[in-house]
Amino acid sequence: MGDKIEYTYINNIDYPADLRKLGVEELPKVCEELRMDIIEELSVNPGHLASSLGVVELTVALHYVFNTPYDRIVWDVGHQAYGHKILTGRRDKFCTNRKLHGIKPFPHPYESEYDTFCCGHASNSISAALGMAVAAKLNKEERQVVAVIGDGAMSGGLAFEGINNTASTPNDMLIVLNDNNMSIDRSVGGMRKYLLQLTTSSQYNSIRYKISQKLINMGVLTEKRRKGLIRFNNSVKSVLTRQQNMFEGMDIRYFGPTDGNDVIELVRILRAIKEMKGPKILHIHTKKGKGYAPAEQNATVWHAPGKFDFESGERIQHDDGKAHPPKFQDVFGMTLLELAQKNNKIVGVTPAMPTGCSMNIMMKAMPNRVFDVGIAEGHAVTFSGGMAKDGLMPFCNIYSSFAQRAYDNIIHDVATMNLDVVFCLDRAGIVGEDGPTHHGAFDLAALRPIPNLTIASPYNEPELRNLMFTAQLGNKGPFVIRYPRGNGSVIEWRQDMEEIAVGKGRKLKDGDDIAVLSLGPIGVEAAKAISIAEMKALNENSAEALHVAHYDMRFLKPIDTDILHEVGKNFKKVITVEDATIKGGLGSAVLEFFADNGYELEVKRIGIPDEFVEHGTVAELLEICKMDAESIAQEILK
Amino acid sequence: MGDKIEYTYINNIDYPADLRKLGVEELPKVCEELRMDIIEELSVNPGHLASSLGVVELTVALHYVFNTPYDRIVWDVGHQAYGHKILTGRRDKFCTNRKLHGIKPFPHPYESEYDTFCCGHASNSISAALGMAVAAKLNKEERQVVAVIGDGAMSGGLAFEGINNTASTPNDMLIVLNDNNMSIDRSVGGMRKYLLQLTTSSQYNSIRYKISQKLINMGVLTEKRRKGLIRFNNSVKSVLTRQQNMFEGMDIRYFGPTDGNDVIELVRILRAIKEMKGPKILHIHTKKGKGYAPAEQNATVWHAPGKFDFESGERIQHDDGKAHPPKFQDVFGMTLLELAQKNNKIVGVTPAMPTGCSMNIMMKAMPNRVFDVGIAEGHAVTFSGGMAKDGLMPFCNIYSSFAQRAYDNIIHDVATMNLDVVFCLDRAGIVGEDGPTHHGAFDLAALRPIPNLTIASPYNEPELRNLMFTAQLGNKGPFVIRYPRGNGSVIEWRQDMEEIAVGKGRKLKDGDDIAVLSLGPIGVEAAKAISIAEMKALNENSAEALHVAHYDMRFLKPIDTDILHEVGKNFKKVITVEDATIKGGLGSAVLEFFADNGYELEVKRIGIPDEFVEHGTVAELLEICKMDAESIAQEILK
Repeated sequence: MGDKIEYTYINNIDYPADLRKLGVEELPKVCEELRMDIIEELSVNPGHLASSLGVVELTVALHYVFNTPYDRIVWDVGHQAYGHKILTGRRDKFCTNRKLHGIKPFPHPYESEYDTFCCGHASNSISAALGMAVAAKLNKEERQVVAVIGDGAMSGGLAFEGINNTASTPNDMLIVLNDNNMSIDRSVGGMRKYLLQLTTSSQYNSIRYKISQKLINMGVLTEKRRKGLIRFNNSVKSVLTRQQNMFEGMDIRYFGPTDGNDVIELVRILRAIKEMKGPKILHIHTKKGKGYAPAEQNATVWHAPGKFDFESGERIQHDDGKAHPPKFQDVFGMTLLELAQKNNKIVGVTPAMPTGCSMNIMMKAMPNRVFDVGIAEGHAVTFSGGMAKDGLMPFCNIYSSFAQRAYDNIIHDVATMNLDVVFCLDRAGIVGEDGPTHHGAFDLAALRPIPNLTIASPYNEPELRNLMFTAQLGNKGPFVIRYPRGNGSVIEWRQDMEEIAVGKGRKLKDGDDIAVLSLGPIGVEAAKAISIAEMKALNENSAEALHVAHYDMRFLKPIDTDILHEVGKNFKKVITVEDATIKGGLGSAVLEFFADNGYELEVKRIGIPDEFVEHGTVAELLEICKMDAESIAQEILK
Repeated sequence: MGDKIEYTYINNIDYPADLRKLGVEELPKVCEELRMDIIEELSVNPGHLASSLGVVELTVALHYVFNTPYDRIVWDVGHQAYGHKILTGRRDKFCTNRKLHGIKPFPHPYESEYDTFCCGHASNSISAALGMAVAAKLNKEERQVVAVIGDGAMSGGLAFEGINNTASTPNDMLIVLNDNNMSIDRSVGGMRKYLLQLTTSSQYNSIRYKISQKLINMGVLTEKRRKGLIRFNNSVKSVLTRQQNMFEGMDIRYFGPTDGNDVIELVRILRAIKEMKGPKILHIHTKKGKGYAPAEQNATVWHAPGKFDFESGERIQHDDGKAHPPKFQDVFGMTLLELAQKNNKIVGVTPAMPTGCSMNIMMKAMPNRVFDVGIAEGHAVTFSGGMAKDGLMPFCNIYSSFAQRAYDNIIHDVATMNLDVVFCLDRAGIVGEDGPTHHGAFDLAALRPIPNLTIASPYNEPELRNLMFTAQLGNKGPFVIRYPRGNGSVIEWRQDMEEIAVGKGRKLKDGDDIAVLSLGPIGVEAAKAISIAEMKALNENSAEALHVAHYDMRFLKPIDTDILHEVGKNFKKVITVEDATIKGGLGSAVLEFFADNGYELEVKRIGIPDEFVEHGTVAELLEICKMDAESIAQEILK
C-alpha cells in the first residue's frame, strides 16, 4: 500500500469469461488487485471486510475453473461474496453496496444470474445446491454445482441435513468447506474439534506410532524393518484417513485440507476433482482478513469494521462529544449481567451472536452461565427448554429473523410445557442495510397465535430493563421481549428496575379525537408524529385543536383489554403502529378485540407492508414504509 | 400366546421403585409380561405398536438402572413410550390411551413426573437432555440424564445441533442411540450408512486384512506370526474404532453397538457406564415389533396397525360394504402421479412420510423423481427451493405441524426468490388422537404474512385436484395447499381437473341475512350448519325464513376481494369458519379487509381457540372447539 493502486487486471475483467482468458500464473496478481479493490472500497463504504478478504483466492479459482453462470456456485452467507460481486459485472456499482436502491447486501438471484440462491441466513447452501445438482441430473444438463460453506455455518442443523442427503442422493456436486476457524464470534461445538482433528491428523500419527511400538514390543519389528512399516503406513494412509472422517464414512469423497489462500494450488485441485462423479468435499483453510494486516490480527472487529483509513488501518470512530442514548443491545447485555448477579437461576444462551447481542458482557463475567451454541437456533431454544424444565431461567437471545428457524422449537419444546424461557428477540422490525433477509418482520404475527406465550416490546431502555426484570421473576411461562437494532431514546437508561404487570400497557398522553396504540420503540416515532400533527392542526385552525391520545401497549399478548375497552368506548378512530408486518400483529389483534366485543371503530393499521422490504438506512426504510413520524402524522391528520 | 396371560410381575409394579426391588435375572420375565400387556392392550385400543415393542428391554433396563424420576429419561418421539407409561403409574389408565381426556398420545410433563419433556416431534431429545444435564451441574445435583433417540430421528438437524453442543459443553449425559433400521418408513441419508458401517466394522476388518496382507508380502509376517498380529490388531481395535466414528472424533465416548433386546446385557452395560464422566453414546440395536411375529415381519404396517386379533395377528379391517369418500391423502398421492405423468418438471419431496402422505404411489412409479429426505423438514424445503430455482416443479409434502420446523426455509429459501414450490401441508387443522403437538393449527396465521405466498385450502377432493393442477402450471411462486387428515366428502373424486383463478373463491349458496365465509373442508361442516340453522329458523317461525349465504373462499392469500366487497356491501353480519387458530388467519384477514375498506360489519370468527387443544377424535374435538356443524348453526342463529 502507499502507492497509487493500479488495477491492470481487474479493470479488464467485467465478467468471469474475461478472467478465464488469463493464464493461471496471472491469477495471484488478479487476487492482489481484487483484494485491494475490496479494501479500498470498504474503507469508505462500510461492509463485511474480513470474510470477503479470506475468500479472494477461492472466488477467483472457482470462477476460473467453473463455467459460471452455467455452472452454479452457491455461497453460504453472503458476507464473503464481495469479490464474487466485483468479478460478476458489479464492480462499477459496488460503491452502492448496501445503500438504498444499490446493490444488495447479500447475493440474490434478482440481482445477477451469477447469484444462484438467496444467502442471508447461514447453512442453507448444501441443501440448495443439492437441489440444483438433482435438477441438473433430471434435466440432463452437464452442469457443475458447487456449494461454499464456512466452518461456522457447518454447526447449523440444516447443513447436516444437507450433507446427510447429499450422501444418499445421486449427484456430482462439490462442497467447499471453507474453514477459517471462526464464525462471526467463534466456532462452537464438536464439529469444530472434529475438523481440527482432520487437519492435524494427530490421531493418525498417534496410531501409527502405537502400531510401531506394539510391533517392536512383539518383536515383529526391528529398527530396520520399522522404516518399511512407516512406508507401509503411509501407503495405507488414505484408508486410515477415510476412517478418520465422517464424510467418507457417509460416502462423500473428502479432499484436503489444503491452503485456500493459494490460488494456483486451488485451481490445480479444483481442475483435478471437477469431473469426478459423486459428491465431494474439498476442505480448505483460509485466513479471515487475509492480506490486510489489521483485519488479519482481529478478524472479529474487522468482520464489519465501519469506515477506516486505507493507509493506516485506523478505524474511523464518530464521536461528536455529546451523550447519546445507548444501544438496546448494550442495555440488554448490561442488564442481563445485573440481573444474573442477583438471580442465580439466570443463564444466557446465544446462537453465535454473543458480541452482536452483547451477551459477551455476561459471558466474560460468568463464563459458566452463558452458552454460545453456535449457529444453531433450534438447539438454542430446545436447550433453553431443557434448562427451564429443571429450574433454570434461560435468557435466550436470538435475532428476530433467525428465530424463524426455531419456530417449532418455541412451540413444541417450550410453549406446550409453558416453560419459563425468556426469549429476547434482537434486531426486531426494520434492521436497515442488511435488508430483507434480516428484517425482523414476522415475529409478532407468527408468535401471537402460540398459546401460553407472553409477547412484549419495550418503548425505551428503562422499559426493556423493567421487562427483563419482570420476566426473570419466574412462573410466567415463555416470555418474549422484542426490540430493534440500534439506539433507544433515553440517555439516563440505568434506572431502578420495577415489575410490570403482565398484559398491562400505559397511557402516554391524553386526548379525545384519535387514539394511537403503539407497541415498542416505534412508539417514540408515533409520539413525534402526534406532536407534529397537533402542531399542524393548531397552525391551520387554532379554534379546533386536535387532541390525540397515545397508548403504549407494551404487550401484544396478553393484550391490555382495559385499554382496548377504554378506547373502544371513547373513540371513533384508532391508529395502530408497530414495527412488524401489517398482517396478523398488533393491528389485527386490536381488530379482533373490537370485533369480539362489538365495538365499531375506524381502525388504521401502520406497519411493515406485505412485501420483502429492501435494504437502506432504517430512516429511509421507515419513510418508504410510511412508518416514520411524518407519515404517521399525515395519517393522524387524515 | 394362546394361554391366558398371567401378569405375575407387572401386577406388582406400580412404579419403577417396585421394579428396582427385583433381581436382574427376573427382568426377562418382566419384559415378557410388559410386551404381552402392550400387545393385548393395543389389540383393542389402537396405537403405536411396533416401536413400543422394540424398546421393552431398554425401557425396563433404564428404569431399573437409573433412579427415575430423579434421574431424567428423555424420550425422542413418544411412539415408543408405552412400556414407559405402564411402568410409571399408568397401567390402570392405559386403556384410555389416546382417548379424549385419557392419557396423552405422547409423554408430557403435565401427565407424569416421569415424563421429562414433550416428545411429539422428533429429534429434540438431545438438546433438551443437554439442558437438563447443564441444569443439574449448575444446581449441583448428582442427577443422571439420559436421552433416547432413534436412528430415524438422528437425521434431523436438531439432533445434530444437539450432539455438536453435547460434545463441547461440560456434561455427563448419556445418549442411547436406538438403532432399529428404520424411522416410520425407512431411514434415509448418509448417517444411516455411517451407522451401518459402525455396526459391521467392515472397514476395520478390511484394514486389518490389508495390514496383514501387506506385512505378509513384505515378509514381516509369517502364518505363525499372523495370529499374533490379529491379536495385536484386536488390542488396538479401540483406537481404530475411535477413528471410525464421528462421536469419539467429537469427544463423545462411544459404546456399542450392542443387542438392545437383551435386558441383562443392557443392565450390565448401563451400570458400567452410568458413573463415567463426560458425554457418552451407547449404540444399541433393537428390532421393531420385537416379540410379536406379525409386527416383526412388517414393522411399517404394524407401526400403528389399528385393532387386531391378539391370537391370530389378523388386523381387523372395517368394511361396511358401502362406498366412502377417499382420504385426502390418497387423492393427493394419485393426483400427484397423474400430474407427474404429464408434466416432467414435477418432482416429489417428503421428509420421512411417503406412506403417511401417499407420495409412495409416485415413488413406486417414478423412483427417480421422488425424494424421501428423512426427518429433515428444513432440508426438504430448501432442497425444493434449489430444484425450483433450476426449473423443476417440486411438490413438497409436509405435515402442517412439522412444517413449523421449516418456517424460515419457506421464507428465506423460497419466498424471497418467489420460487415455484408447491407446499402440500397435510394434517392441517385438528388431527384427532395425536393431540396438541400434531394439530396443524398455526400454518395459516404463520404463513399469511409471508410475501409472495399463495395460500389455498380445498373444499373437497375435486378441489384439491384442481388446486394441484393449477399450482403445477407454474409461474405462480410458492403455492401452499393445506388439507386435513382423513376422508373428504366426494365419493366420485376423480373428476377432470381444471385451472382455478388464483385468489378467487366461489359462492356455494345464496342468501341475504348472514354470510358465512369458510376456508377448506371445514366448509362442509359450515354447509351442514347452514342447513340446520335454516331448518330450525323455518320450524320456529316460518314467516321469517333465514337465508344464509355461503362462500368457499378457497384462498387465504391472495384473498378474494371481489367476494369481500360483495359481502361488505350486502351484509351486516358475517361468520368466518376455518380449521386453524382463531388468531391471525382467515377471520383476521377478513377483519383487516373490512377495516381497510371502511366496511362496518359484525364479524364472528370460528376457529381453533388460543390454547393447546388436547387429543380425542376429530368429531369430539370439533365439538369442544365449537367448530362442528351444530355449534356453527347455533352461532348462525344467534
